[in-house]
Amino acid sequence: MQLKVQPIDIKVGKYKVVLNSIDAKELGVIEGDRVRVRNHESLTAIVDFTEDMIPPGMIGVYHELQQKLNKQWTETVEVTPASRPKSARLIRKIMDRQILTKDEIYEIVRGIVDESLSDIELSAFITSTYINDLTDDETEWLTRAMIDTGEKIEFDSHPIMDKHSIGGVPGNKISLLIVPIVAANGLLIPKTSSRAITGAGGTADLMEVLAPVDFSASEIKEMTEKVGGVLVWGGGTNIAPADDKLIKIEYPLKVDPHSQLLASIMAKKGAVGADHVVMDIPMGAGTKIPDIKTGRKLSRDLINLGERLGMTVECALTYGSSPVGRTVGPALEVREAFRVLESMEGPNSLIEKSTVIAGMMLEMGGIAGKGNGQELAMETLKNGKALEKMKQIIEVQGGDPGVTSADIIIGEHSIQLFAPTNGYILEFDNKRIVEIARIAGAPADKGAGVVIHKKRGEPVKKNEPVLTIYSEKKWKLDNAIKSAQLNLPIVVEGMLIERVPTYREL
Amino acid sequence: MQLKVQPIDIKVGKYKVVLNSIDAKELGVIEGDRVRVRNHESLTAIVDFTEDMIPPGMIGVYHELQQKLNKQWTETVEVTPASRPKSARLIRKIMDRQILTKDEIYEIVRGIVDESLSDIELSAFITSTYINDLTDDETEWLTRAMIDTGEKIEFDSHPIMDKHSIGGVPGNKISLLIVPIVAANGLLIPKTSSRAITGAGGTADLMEVLAPVDFSASEIKEMTEKVGGVLVWGGGTNIAPADDKLIKIEYPLKVDPHSQLLASIMAKKGAVGADHVVMDIPMGAGTKIPDIKTGRKLSRDLINLGERLGMTVECALTYGSSPVGRTVGPALEVREAFRVLESMEGPNSLIEKSTVIAGMMLEMGGIAGKGNGQELAMETLKNGKALEKMKQIIEVQGGDPGVTSADIIIGEHSIQLFAPTNGYILEFDNKRIVEIARIAGAPADKGAGVVIHKKRGEPVKKNEPVLTIYSEKKWKLDNAIKSAQLNLPIVVEGMLIERVPTYREL
Repeated sequence: MQLKVQPIDIKVGKYKVVLNSIDAKELGVIEGDRVRVRNHESLTAIVDFTEDMIPPGMIGVYHELQQKLNKQWTETVEVTPASRPKSARLIRKIMDRQILTKDEIYEIVRGIVDESLSDIELSAFITSTYINDLTDDETEWLTRAMIDTGEKIEFDSHPIMDKHSIGGVPGNKISLLIVPIVAANGLLIPKTSSRAITGAGGTADLMEVLAPVDFSASEIKEMTEKVGGVLVWGGGTNIAPADDKLIKIEYPLKVDPHSQLLASIMAKKGAVGADHVVMDIPMGAGTKIPDIKTGRKLSRDLINLGERLGMTVECALTYGSSPVGRTVGPALEVREAFRVLESMEGPNSLIEKSTVIAGMMLEMGGIAGKGNGQELAMETLKNGKALEKMKQIIEVQGGDPGVTSADIIIGEHSIQLFAPTNGYILEFDNKRIVEIARIAGAPADKGAGVVIHKKRGEPVKKNEPVLTIYSEKKWKLDNAIKSAQLNLPIVVEGMLIERVPTYREL
Repeated sequence: MQLKVQPIDIKVGKYKVVLNSIDAKELGVIEGDRVRVRNHESLTAIVDFTEDMIPPGMIGVYHELQQKLNKQWTETVEVTPASRPKSARLIRKIMDRQILTKDEIYEIVRGIVDESLSDIELSAFITSTYINDLTDDETEWLTRAMIDTGEKIEFDSHPIMDKHSIGGVPGNKISLLIVPIVAANGLLIPKTSSRAITGAGGTADLMEVLAPVDFSASEIKEMTEKVGGVLVWGGGTNIAPADDKLIKIEYPLKVDPHSQLLASIMAKKGAVGADHVVMDIPMGAGTKIPDIKTGRKLSRDLINLGERLGMTVECALTYGSSPVGRTVGPALEVREAFRVLESMEGPNSLIEKSTVIAGMMLEMGGIAGKGNGQELAMETLKNGKALEKMKQIIEVQGGDPGVTSADIIIGEHSIQLFAPTNGYILEFDNKRIVEIARIAGAPADKGAGVVIHKKRGEPVKKNEPVLTIYSEKKWKLDNAIKSAQLNLPIVVEGMLIERVPTYREL
């Protein structure tokens, strides 16, 4: 059927067209079917349809397909019904719990990357793999397919070090210390990070306070070879692009299927050619890992998958019930980390966690002997080599290497929350802290966030400050205060928690 | 945040808006999140976003929401982040195999009907219930919720009769005979039917050859009370609207979750107030029911659910490996059924199946004694009362009651396919017959379809016709022939199927 093009200037993230229902009927296609649109080349698009927006004889062409076809208003294209792509039929197999071959897994991942699968089909894939884990073989192929369908970095010299935190703990700014410590000791660490989706700041959001983070794979290679390490945004590259597309579907469903979690983490490490990887697995209330059993299973699965892919993986189950350090929000976190680099001044939880993990990497990379890694990491902080390396990293990424902790701009509007009574911090809700930081503007407003004066279990006096909220905008601060007052993130109680009678009258 | 409205004149079937990514960041929402759009009333919409199509300060508003808001270009609305609807959070519970309460099931069904669930969430719901059946209680609530969230018909006199075929067999035109037989015997049968989605013609597509089929619930009631029966399109009413919305998601996934299948069938029966229902369950190769065990399980589940809803259900497991009668496609099927009504002239498979099922209904409705239903049905055909009733039904629906089988217009282009050799019809592929009828134009082109001269097991001589394909358009006929030749739907073999040696030399 010959139809005239009506461009629709909206991005939908897929090759999609809109047909008038009369033409759709004539073609024998219904909503969710595909058509082949023939130009000089031939492309398959998903069909929506309408009774009145697009007249019969026309085909509405959304932005992405329009870009590809490059046809102007009322130029014609040949449209014929197309069968479902093989990848869509394979998703049905996964729904039926059939085990897929390597080729089939690759076919699905290609379908994800080239946008030929619809959101409905991707959601079915996510839901099926959430309900029933993939096998170890399938997970390995999924990971390899994610690596192979994107850009890869191939370094000439090895070993390549990497780390990953599976998230769930606020204020986890440790990469800002670990990367310079590891690179200062002569190892290569091309660290790609994410931006926060539901958090108050991912490592990429943090680093952006100091320097640009959006680079191509070849720029990452070049910069890493030059100064030993980088702290960049993974989303700026085309590394493991399937993962980003899956995350877009997982986010509204609020699920993280186990097999995909493994593949997602390991694909990014595999694509940069990592040899040795340390996983930071925060555990405890409010994190993704509620108990040690779950933490150990995840560790085993990551180590196992690493082995299949030729990577050495070590896992650190870390304390995740309280924030790391005492700040949440990009600029506040960067300032806290920078003070440690400058003068070892800062919270013990941050220094301890960073040096433990950096130490593991120094041992795995053969720089420190077994058991001596943390000491060397600590030494690298103290002697200023980590700070010097961090300045080189900032410079190579295009930031100002002369920056100091005092230069970092924090939101100008702030308010303190005070303890209502003497006592101990009885409850401390990580998720509420993050929510308040987000309402105050983080991570988009770099200066927004929360400073935590008192953590769980610490003693506090009446009218002592427990939290300070910072914001770049007055109205956002007002909203954050309102939210904090409505549902307090911190509960202070006197020592006597409950009056327990010592005897009962009979 | 105050944003200016930019209407986007496209129907997306949901309340959706497009934000510039800068505004989205500022609001702290990402793709798949919801925002509350405040006008005089306040509506929740799903967010897409864009870098360049909608400028900062504007909000792209798709058709459905635009209709509701009724705001003109650049008028402002107040936009704030909104939390996910409760129904979306409940879907996660289903993914986690948790059993839902009655209220929770109703919440989800309301979310389906009022379009507040996204396609991604609906797909997760379908996939989860496909992988793990709902419990009997949940299925009952799902059915009741589907009934209660739509229009209902309440008849003053009872019993109300109904039938349903679960589909999968081509040419199943039996409702065109059953409805007039049952109504001619004084019972009320408000038969709603579907249009074909993947078939060559649903009962609604067939009846449309004779009369309009698109009526409201109150018109259906009125017409049924007047002449005893109707043959209308269920999709024209607002009966069980949740079902239509679920089918839109099930179609691209090519699944039919068991619990939803049950609820879908029974909700439509419950909403018209049916007391006695006969289920036609075609069984065999190419149908939805591969074996007797599956057929019996489905029967038990339908009977059980009927009991919970106060309906008597009887099931007929019918032969589904060959088409019913010898025609596939709207006009051809109607002509075949009409000839039976006019003169009992027609294939035995059609007459037999129709009178058996009509007979069951006459017995259930108390018109015929146990075991005498089919005889009465046959009698009603023979004495012309069914034809007379059919004419009344056609007239009440606005068609021409003077129509005869000779008046029905068949596609003017046709071609016969001949047997290549003497022998028997060894294989007969129902799905291919339907595909060929669809390529020829069915069900949209009423005159398109296939006449089957020889069925499985029947003897055929070389050069005898086995199939005739009809089409309204020459080019569609050409495509249908090409498809038939590429992949023959019928295989003819001589009697000697394989030369079997009578002895082996040792």
